[in-house]
Amino acid sequence: MLGNFTYCNPTKLYFGEDALNGLNAELPKYGKNVLLVYGGGSIKKNGIYDKVVALLKENGKEIFEDAGVMPNPTSDKLNEGVARAKAAQADLILAVGGGSVCDYAKAVSVSVHCNDDPWEKYFIRFEDVSCKIIPVGCVLTMVGTGSEMNGGSVITNHQQKLKIGHVFGENVFPKFSILNPKFTYTLPKYQMISGIFDIMSHILEQYFSGTDDNTSDYIMEGLLRSLIHSANIAVENPTDYEARSNIMWIATWALNTLVAKGKSTDWMVHMLGQAVGAHTDATHGMTLSAVSMPYYRYILPYGTKKFARYAEAVWNVNPKGKTEEDIAKAGLCAMEDWMKSIGLVMNITDLGTTEEMLDGMVESTLIMNGGYKILTPEEIKIIFKASL
Amino acid sequence: MLGNFTYCNPTKLYFGEDALNGLNAELPKYGKNVLLVYGGGSIKKNGIYDKVVALLKENGKEIFEDAGVMPNPTSDKLNEGVARAKAAQADLILAVGGGSVCDYAKAVSVSVHCNDDPWEKYFIRFEDVSCKIIPVGCVLTMVGTGSEMNGGSVITNHQQKLKIGHVFGENVFPKFSILNPKFTYTLPKYQMISGIFDIMSHILEQYFSGTDDNTSDYIMEGLLRSLIHSANIAVENPTDYEARSNIMWIATWALNTLVAKGKSTDWMVHMLGQAVGAHTDATHGMTLSAVSMPYYRYILPYGTKKFARYAEAVWNVNPKGKTEEDIAKAGLCAMEDWMKSIGLVMNITDLGTTEEMLDGMVESTLIMNGGYKILTPEEIKIIFKASL
Repeated sequence: MLGNFTYCNPTKLYFGEDALNGLNAELPKYGKNVLLVYGGGSIKKNGIYDKVVALLKENGKEIFEDAGVMPNPTSDKLNEGVARAKAAQADLILAVGGGSVCDYAKAVSVSVHCNDDPWEKYFIRFEDVSCKIIPVGCVLTMVGTGSEMNGGSVITNHQQKLKIGHVFGENVFPKFSILNPKFTYTLPKYQMISGIFDIMSHILEQYFSGTDDNTSDYIMEGLLRSLIHSANIAVENPTDYEARSNIMWIATWALNTLVAKGKSTDWMVHMLGQAVGAHTDATHGMTLSAVSMPYYRYILPYGTKKFARYAEAVWNVNPKGKTEEDIAKAGLCAMEDWMKSIGLVMNITDLGTTEEMLDGMVESTLIMNGGYKILTPEEIKIIFKASL
Repeated sequence: MLGNFTYCNPTKLYFGEDALNGLNAELPKYGKNVLLVYGGGSIKKNGIYDKVVALLKENGKEIFEDAGVMPNPTSDKLNEGVARAKAAQADLILAVGGGSVCDYAKAVSVSVHCNDDPWEKYFIRFEDVSCKIIPVGCVLTMVGTGSEMNGGSVITNHQQKLKIGHVFGENVFPKFSILNPKFTYTLPKYQMISGIFDIMSHILEQYFSGTDDNTSDYIMEGLLRSLIHSANIAVENPTDYEARSNIMWIATWALNTLVAKGKSTDWMVHMLGQAVGAHTDATHGMTLSAVSMPYYRYILPYGTKKFARYAEAVWNVNPKGKTEEDIAKAGLCAMEDWMKSIGLVMNITDLGTTEEMLDGMVESTLIMNGGYKILTPEEIKIIFKASL
């Protein structure tokens, strides 16, 4: 904990099978007009839509709809949502869905009263919010992004082939989030596994950075062990409540700012994955899994000590008779075996990438400076090639 | 994560060497009258008092003092503080000190506008707050209780020989806390070590309960490993900033409600320790260390599996060729060796307890029902006897 920092996370969480009742405590705090934001029709099929609408009506709310939020919400859709929120004179934006819907709701919330182009202001120039913010609440139906308890918002611009995240301050965090593990049961297995790796990647991005002794690293080792344990159960039995609820809780704490406090972080896997996503529209977690092993193997020589610690603390690698490098490599092998065993996508070819797309993807990749090696564009291409 | 629960922790933390500057951001949010609450003269000797007073004056505050808060704040002192806060028409109570001072400040904050006897209402009848609460801020100078980010408040009544804690809701949590690890450097080693064990005990009270698979247990194993690692460094070199800052951060997260979410908890060690404290006025953390080994050895047969997990995950006990019971016992032996090595008090005789006091202490001990064995008064006496 070497750095100076502030910590404040005001989001109120309602967790468990009865979590949706939290709406009865929260809705009275806001005005009459609610913009209900969601994605495709899945929440209509599984009954969550009906339950939410019933609670909104019971609480005397006027409901305005903004449906069709896509897995990678676009800047065009953002402009549409802003127009809808304005027309509704929304007092509350209620996001019902996964991270994409929640990310999008936050982007709308800071853009309605913004006199600038929101894509340019927040995602190209990374400027702070300087206008009124419409409060956001969240009913989570897919686990992974941690968007339910942070200020993150990732938007894709197809014209510019860019997928960029802005991390907003605590005034943009959802005021409340409803976390019912059973709401995630109907998710296809591919999406569940993708979410699990998104969580793992969030933790690893913050773990593989820095050489100081930081309590956060110990917390992250605990989160990873619990995640691996619960993921193994959930892959066999997706309706194991205990496993699914642990995964949901880990997702929240993996990316609600806590474990990054007082330490440096990397986020290069996300930059590589987001470049893949911008060019293929592939599922977020799978873009991360597809690039992770080539990236980590490439940077291992620059952070061997931490990779060796990871191998022992998370993957139970026995260090006896091994060099630090051997231990580190054995940890990555164990991770790779596990990734394959739960069904993750292990290369970008399977996500629709071809060799001709690599140069464009390299160009779309933002280079971070918190990892064990600051990559050059040439190195990024080597990693993408190894991911094919 | 099997239970239904809500989580919200609104306390804003300012952490690091420059944390005190956080007062400049926080003080303008409150009215003019500040009740400055502190203990003995140590903050005057180490210069923290002068720094805080200077910042209060710079921010145009009128300062009213309430000094002399004792290590185990009494109900009589609470009544005195209420009178002082009333006379000051306090808009903010600023606690500068350790957990006792912060606990006391919270008790005053909910008692000023209370038309009942606060000891009876909150600590005997455990009633909720039904009156206006005066906001509390905290400048922490001693680490251990976690009082800086929770609603806990422990008050002692000498006439009734009772030391009782009330856990207030999030509206009573400090609005902000200033955590500068360097403010803890001047603390005598005895107090530092006592605080370290208080932290460990908070974690273990929440760890040794329940048989479900809960992410919190993994987080706690991480916190314990980091605590043991940093404590070993701090005992050798009390001004190692990295170690002291980790310890400070672990203390906060050990008892700010997070790791108890969705799981059962015990707190029997605290009940035993508080009974010792009520009869001897001994330092809190040392009362916990003195009773812990006898208590854990007594309940081990009822929770062997968890004690074995603890041995492997926290104390690196090699399970090879051992029964579960052997592993569990080896973990407690490792813990005992470590406790002795850092200088903790290992029996209640050293804290001033004599055999004649045991019956009275048994009578003062509240019996909890979340551990692996609900104790009878006879068993409590056996444990106290083994602690002599």
